Amino acid sequence: MTTGHLAVGWTGQVLALSKGDEVKLFVAKSAGFCFGVKRAMDMALEAAQKYPKHLYTLGPLIHNPQAVEFLEGIGIKVKERIEDIPTGTVVFRSHGVSFEDSKKAKEKKLHIIDATCPIVKRAQFFAKFLHRHGYALLIVGNAHHPEVEAIRSYLDEDVLVVDQPKRVERLGPWEKLGIIAQTTQSFNLFKEVVAISLEKAKEVRVFNTICQATTIRQKEAVEIARKVDCMIVTGGFNSGNTQRLATICREIQPKTYHIETARELNPRWLVRKKKIGLTAGASTPHWIIHEVEKEVRSLKGLKS
Amino acid sequence: MTTGHLAVGWTGQVLALSKGDEVKLFVAKSAGFCFGVKRAMDMALEAAQKYPKHLYTLGPLIHNPQAVEFLEGIGIKVKERIEDIPTGTVVFRSHGVSFEDSKKAKEKKLHIIDATCPIVKRAQFFAKFLHRHGYALLIVGNAHHPEVEAIRSYLDEDVLVVDQPKRVERLGPWEKLGIIAQTTQSFNLFKEVVAISLEKAKEVRVFNTICQATTIRQKEAVEIARKVDCMIVTGGFNSGNTQRLATICREIQPKTYHIETARELNPRWLVRKKKIGLTAGASTPHWIIHEVEKEVRSLKGLKS
Repeated sequence: MTTGHLAVGWTGQVLALSKGDEVKLFVAKSAGFCFGVKRAMDMALEAAQKYPKHLYTLGPLIHNPQAVEFLEGIGIKVKERIEDIPTGTVVFRSHGVSFEDSKKAKEKKLHIIDATCPIVKRAQFFAKFLHRHGYALLIVGNAHHPEVEAIRSYLDEDVLVVDQPKRVERLGPWEKLGIIAQTTQSFNLFKEVVAISLEKAKEVRVFNTICQATTIRQKEAVEIARKVDCMIVTGGFNSGNTQRLATICREIQPKTYHIETARELNPRWLVRKKKIGLTAGASTPHWIIHEVEKEVRSLKGLKS
Repeated sequence: MTTGHLAVGWTGQVLALSKGDEVKLFVAKSAGFCFGVKRAMDMALEAAQKYPKHLYTLGPLIHNPQAVEFLEGIGIKVKERIEDIPTGTVVFRSHGVSFEDSKKAKEKKLHIIDATCPIVKRAQFFAKFLHRHGYALLIVGNAHHPEVEAIRSYLDEDVLVVDQPKRVERLGPWEKLGIIAQTTQSFNLFKEVVAISLEKAKEVRVFNTICQATTIRQKEAVEIARKVDCMIVTGGFNSGNTQRLATICREIQPKTYHIETARELNPRWLVRKKKIGLTAGASTPHWIIHEVEKEVRSLKGLKS
C-alpha cells in the first residue's frame, strides 16, 4: 500500500510513516452533486428510459466531462445549438437556457424537458423583478457562464456583470441599483461588490441568490483547508463553482490542487502530508469523489 | 511668535526650526458647519429677531456648547422637555424631534419652527417607507443619539440599532431586511453592517442615508491624516460626528487630538511636528476653527 510513497521518494528519504504518526483525511460532507445537478441528472436518466431515440441536451447537461461522457454512453447527445437538433426531445440543462433558445425550441416543436435548477430560476425571477421595478441590474458573476448568459437574455436592457469588486468603481452612479448573484458565486465576492456599490447608488436592493448549498460547500471547504497540509478539490476543469472552490481553498492553503479525476492525483503532493482535505464541486459525481478518496487512502496507507 | 515652542522645550532642545525646515498646516476645506446645521442656526437667528420673547430650543440646537452658549446669549433658552416650555416659540433642532414631543408641542399650541435637517427628514422618510413595506428595520447608528431616537419614535415596531458590525451576527435571520444609517455615521461601518447582513437575509434593501457632506468630510480627513504627523479635530465633545471624525483619523494617525476650542490645544502636541492637519465636525462654528487655526499658526511661527 505504500508504493505510492516510495515512488516519490526521490531524495531517498523514508516515506513510510513511523508509528504514532497519524495521517488524517478530511472529506467534505458537502462535496459533490447539489440538489439542482442531481435533479437534472435524474431527469436526463428518466428521459433516456422514456425517449431513447432523438434525445439531446443543449450544451453539456452539467459542467463535468465524465458525467457527460456517461450520458453520451446511454444515448444522450450533446448539441451546442438548437439548429443542430432536428427533432425529438431536448433537455434544458441545470444552468438554464436563453430566451432565444427556449423560443426556437418551441417553434421547432421539440419535446422540452426543462432541467433548469429551481434556484437558478429564482435568480432569473429576481433579475426580472428588479428590472421591471426600474432598478439598474448588476449580476455578480462570470459574464460568459451559461447561467449568467441565460439571465441576461430575458432582459432587454443592458445588464452589468462583474466578477471583481474594483470593476464597480468604474460604474454608476445610480439612483436605484438591484444586485443578484450567479447562484454558485463566492459569497465574499458578493459581499464586497454590494459594499462598494453603496458608494454609487442611493438605493441598493439585494437579493441573495447564491445557492445555500454553494455557501455551505464553500464554508466547509474553508474550515477543512484551515486544518490540513494539502487540499484536493475535485471537479470539471470547466466547472466555475469547482474553480472557485479551489481558489477559495488556495487563499488559505496554497497547497491546493484542482483535479478532475483520480488520474490527475500526483502522489508527490501527498508526501509527508499528515492532514489531507478533500472536497468537490456541485457537478462532480460521487463515483469520481469516491475514486479520488480511495486513491488518497491507498497512497497514504489508510483504511478504506 | 515662537513663545509657544520655547514654553514646551522642557528638555532644553532648540525648538525653533532651522532654515529649510518647512512647516505645513493642512486645513480641511470641508471642516465646520454642514448645510443642515447652518440652516438650523440661520433659522434660530431669524427667530431671535422675530420672536425675541419666549423663544426656546428643545435640547441643544446643535451639539456644540459654544454655539449653544452664543444662542443663549441672544435669548434663546434650551429646554430638555416640552413640559418645561410654558408658551411661545420652540425651535426643533437639526437632529429632529420624537413623535411624542412633536405631538405635545402641537397640543400645547406652541409656535413651532422646525429646523430638522432635510437630510435627517429623508432618513426618517426611508425608515417609515421600509417599515410600511414589511421590512425589518436596522439603523446603523448610535441608539442614544437624538436623531436615532427621533427616527425610532415614529415606528411602532421594534427597530434594531447597531454601531458594531459583529452585533449583526447575533440578530436575524430575516426574510426582508431594510437598512438605513444615522446621517452622520461612518461610511465604512455602514458598508460592513450591510455586508454582514447579507448572510442573514434573503432580501436586503438599503437606502444610503448618510449625508454626503459627512462622507466628504470623512474622506478629506482621512486624506489629510495620511500625510501629517499630528491631526487636530475640533468640535463639541458631545458631538457624535466629531467623535467619529477623531476615531477615523486616529486609526491612521495615532497622534490625533479632539479639542473643543483653541484653549484645549496643547503646544506639546506640535513640538517637532512639520505637517499638521486640522479638521472639524459638522456642528463646529467657523469662528472656533479660525481660532484654532490662528493658534496653531502662532505656535508654529506660520503666517496667518
